[in-house]
Amino acid sequence: MPGTQFFNNRRDKKMTTIDLATIKGPADVKKIAREDLPELCDKLRRAMLTRTAAHGGHVGPDLGFVEATVALHYVFNSPVDKIVFDVSHQAYPHKMLTGRMPAYLDPAKYDDVSGYTEPSESPHDLFVVGHTSTSVSLACGLAKARDLRGEKFNVVAVIGDGSLTGGMAFEGLNNLGEQGGNAIVIFNDNQMSIAPNHGGFLGSLARLRATKGNDPCNYFKSLGLDYLYVADGNDVNALIDAFAKVKDCDHPVVVHINTEKGHGYSYAVENKEAWHWSMPWDLETGKVLAAYGESVHDRTAEHLLRKMADDPTLVAITAAVPAFGGWNPQRRSRAGKQFVDVGICEPHACAFASALAKGGARPVWFVASTFMQRVYDQLSHDLAVNSTPAVIVVCASGLSAMNDVTHVGFFDIPMASNIPNILYLCPTSEKEYFAMLDWAIAQRERPVVIRMFQKGAAVAGAPLEDGTDFSQIRNQVVRRGSRVALFGLGEFFGLAEQAADLLAQKGVPATVVNPRFAGDVDEALVGELAKNHSLFVTLEDGVVAGGFGQKIAAAAAARGIRVFVKGAPKAFEDRYNPQELLARCGLTAEALAREILAAL
Amino acid sequence: MPGTQFFNNRRDKKMTTIDLATIKGPADVKKIAREDLPELCDKLRRAMLTRTAAHGGHVGPDLGFVEATVALHYVFNSPVDKIVFDVSHQAYPHKMLTGRMPAYLDPAKYDDVSGYTEPSESPHDLFVVGHTSTSVSLACGLAKARDLRGEKFNVVAVIGDGSLTGGMAFEGLNNLGEQGGNAIVIFNDNQMSIAPNHGGFLGSLARLRATKGNDPCNYFKSLGLDYLYVADGNDVNALIDAFAKVKDCDHPVVVHINTEKGHGYSYAVENKEAWHWSMPWDLETGKVLAAYGESVHDRTAEHLLRKMADDPTLVAITAAVPAFGGWNPQRRSRAGKQFVDVGICEPHACAFASALAKGGARPVWFVASTFMQRVYDQLSHDLAVNSTPAVIVVCASGLSAMNDVTHVGFFDIPMASNIPNILYLCPTSEKEYFAMLDWAIAQRERPVVIRMFQKGAAVAGAPLEDGTDFSQIRNQVVRRGSRVALFGLGEFFGLAEQAADLLAQKGVPATVVNPRFAGDVDEALVGELAKNHSLFVTLEDGVVAGGFGQKIAAAAAARGIRVFVKGAPKAFEDRYNPQELLARCGLTAEALAREILAAL
Repeated sequence: MPGTQFFNNRRDKKMTTIDLATIKGPADVKKIAREDLPELCDKLRRAMLTRTAAHGGHVGPDLGFVEATVALHYVFNSPVDKIVFDVSHQAYPHKMLTGRMPAYLDPAKYDDVSGYTEPSESPHDLFVVGHTSTSVSLACGLAKARDLRGEKFNVVAVIGDGSLTGGMAFEGLNNLGEQGGNAIVIFNDNQMSIAPNHGGFLGSLARLRATKGNDPCNYFKSLGLDYLYVADGNDVNALIDAFAKVKDCDHPVVVHINTEKGHGYSYAVENKEAWHWSMPWDLETGKVLAAYGESVHDRTAEHLLRKMADDPTLVAITAAVPAFGGWNPQRRSRAGKQFVDVGICEPHACAFASALAKGGARPVWFVASTFMQRVYDQLSHDLAVNSTPAVIVVCASGLSAMNDVTHVGFFDIPMASNIPNILYLCPTSEKEYFAMLDWAIAQRERPVVIRMFQKGAAVAGAPLEDGTDFSQIRNQVVRRGSRVALFGLGEFFGLAEQAADLLAQKGVPATVVNPRFAGDVDEALVGELAKNHSLFVTLEDGVVAGGFGQKIAAAAAARGIRVFVKGAPKAFEDRYNPQELLARCGLTAEALAREILAAL
Repeated sequence: MPGTQFFNNRRDKKMTTIDLATIKGPADVKKIAREDLPELCDKLRRAMLTRTAAHGGHVGPDLGFVEATVALHYVFNSPVDKIVFDVSHQAYPHKMLTGRMPAYLDPAKYDDVSGYTEPSESPHDLFVVGHTSTSVSLACGLAKARDLRGEKFNVVAVIGDGSLTGGMAFEGLNNLGEQGGNAIVIFNDNQMSIAPNHGGFLGSLARLRATKGNDPCNYFKSLGLDYLYVADGNDVNALIDAFAKVKDCDHPVVVHINTEKGHGYSYAVENKEAWHWSMPWDLETGKVLAAYGESVHDRTAEHLLRKMADDPTLVAITAAVPAFGGWNPQRRSRAGKQFVDVGICEPHACAFASALAKGGARPVWFVASTFMQRVYDQLSHDLAVNSTPAVIVVCASGLSAMNDVTHVGFFDIPMASNIPNILYLCPTSEKEYFAMLDWAIAQRERPVVIRMFQKGAAVAGAPLEDGTDFSQIRNQVVRRGSRVALFGLGEFFGLAEQAADLLAQKGVPATVVNPRFAGDVDEALVGELAKNHSLFVTLEDGVVAGGFGQKIAAAAAARGIRVFVKGAPKAFEDRYNPQELLARCGLTAEALAREILAAL
């Protein structure tokens, strides 16, 4: 049975009585005899797979890092020694060994832990981490603080080859090379990013693996770092030997460990991209349980593939998350040279897109809201100042998208829409989204950011006027009433309509506006509505601080109009229930109608 | 005379009749005999120095890049071939050779050109560029567009060793290594950043120079790039030979040229940091003409040095611009291990500061407004989500700071103040700035951003209350009136007071508020003032879009209060006159009083 292969690949056939439930912390790992550690790894792997198959989560990266995690906790003395993870995609085994085993054994406790390192769960977790390429910089700071305070302990950063494509990892390594002092970087080379990894440095990493670390052209040594190679990064005892060698070292050293993503679970090994992260699945068959229909991502990629056939300069870009925009391997292959995965380096992706546009091509970069925030400067300096006609499609935005605190899509409007020259479009339907996308690709004047419409093709949205010129800051008045005007931005247009329906039942004929633009105000419309409306209500799918509604508020308040700005408060939310959050923010049709009626 | 040394270092003693005024473009460079090119370089250098000494500007980086620029235009065919500069600190010779010579010869025309590459000036300039580490990514995009369009030309990126410390340069190089096709990176290694360069990779660069490019541990080759070394990067004919070798190459290649920063002007060679950029100076003596007194930067560094003596964990950080915060070489030396220059890598600086705070040290990072925008994600993900008590001092912020479009300080409030958990403080005086700085360093709860007060120690500002707890979002009511309340944020507090004085003369007793916080609203005060004020006026030193005033507008408009949000409109401004901009925005006491009286 391929699904249980993980249970059959133990190097040591002797069965001991290791009971995961008794492992309360690293001290319990250290008590296990070295020859029994492979069995510990197998048991960890089985428990982790059982939980993840039932719960969903990161699969491949955690499977490949089981042995390294056991070895880290066998050799180092966490939390006195500090282990900093990168992106946290490989942190499940660490959580299991540091007091959170019940969350991996007891289905009732599966949700007791987050999917990322989380200091509120354990002193063994240093930082909340969900974005990549940060661990070396963070370790560098911890090591410097240690040295300033005259303390003694090891600082260990874990980083993968995917994360290494982010420039911040270079910055951290380069600074570590100068800083000196104890610092250990565990370079987990599983020869994959989320999808296949990218970059010219893959060749030299391959040569390092081929030469067992002896190739003289060594990226890490070129940054002033010492270097050690471990050929089998899934051999727990080889790892222990290597880690013991660098423990307490007086200078920074990179331990390059060659691991297998998905190790021990054949499905995950055979299709590494599909098994990077998975929704719940059947452990034996490897089949995901829920059936997913075609999504707006799929329709987007197919739409662009059709356009690419007519325009060889149209090029889709991802920064290592090709699922955003629907770029599965088959579609990537169809796009050929018209699809580029740059690796996990959003700053490069943004400047690259700007230059593609400058050079006469038509780039469309697909990026999640949470990752677009990595490029404020490139949006401003490389794109907006130069007003190049690149198109950015923002995925997973708003209050109903990803709900881990490091991945929320609440901030893209305040982050990006206040930059001059960028046109920030929020469609009210999938049809309007595609119209905006086509318009944005065709125009040559300026950068355009479009929020992907996520509520599905069945949502009617505002009536689409053929040939709308979205370069004109004109809001669309969909329903003309008086007294109260509802500005329902993008995905919240439907909510505005529902609230207006309730108000109509109460005899209040509300005006409903499709603002279209998150970052600009239709001053003429505001002036016009000011004549027969005493209250404006703005609805936006994100935090209100610095966002759309506050701009309407400023325009309306200058004219003495009362305004309610509705959206999420300025706060980080973690693992929240979207419906509860919306209710808490008064973002239901009933609550809005009630609040408006009370105010009129 | 050391000041004229530049005129005496020609390799070729024969004088020709090269007249700079006749050089209208690269074609005119190509007409000059190779043996006469050193003389061309000398004449360019003299003219450039004459202009810069009179006008101010970048000195050392441009002096070192004269020969390379002549060689580039001798070998390549700009603008068909595309030359992309990084940061533009080395672009003066390029401007001289591409149609803008008059701006370097005729004092009346000195201001006809910007200090950076600027497409509106010339088709030879591809992008407006003023931040570092972007050129390789931009070149990568131009090359990809070329290949998609089936065109043929060379794409050349220029980048210095300082800029190479920015992670985005790594991202660009790594992507170029994978992309393939024609692309040439001129790596201008002058062994300096703005100040001395930093990072572990300096050792391997030194080994490359020492071995004339033959050291096998080669950073560029490790990224999959071809490589060529030029030992004397100020030998124009050696450069021509090297560039001719790589012209029309079918794959990416790095040409590493070893240049001397400040070449040909002894003062600039001897003190490279001081001569990176200079205000106008006397060419012969090297003395800067205007005398500068002690500034808030100097007082800040001295203040921190005093505190450092008592607290070995207090550490000042810069990302390669130590002048911000007053960290001249002498003070850096006094701070010792308590000062860190990380190189031009703001993302690392921010995460590093967060980890220092987490590790129990007390980091203070000094950063210009324009460069803080490079770290939105690190401010959010590494700092704010983790709520580590790092302190960031924002320099050169507001409408009266740097006035090149790539360096304006208009956007730090909308960029950073909308991130949860970050406390964004705006002092109204230097005394309040130091009080806020001391408080921020002492507290252990959260990240604090403070705008450095720039108007001078003589400004009184709001009365400073001893022991103010700035963790409480309480605005300070400095003058209690009625009807109109003026919220004068930070440096604009004085403007609010002046307007209130004028209003008082007209019988309107205005309320004046020191808001202190750019990103949070004192809801209780807004509610209280709503009782006897019909108009709020907010004043902020930056763009209003997404900023402070719009938050007040939203809070006040919910209560039906009229609000005027004053600041700069959402737009990029370039080489503007600050006083004119303020007048245009209605940000004078007279205009404000007039507008308020008309509205009441």
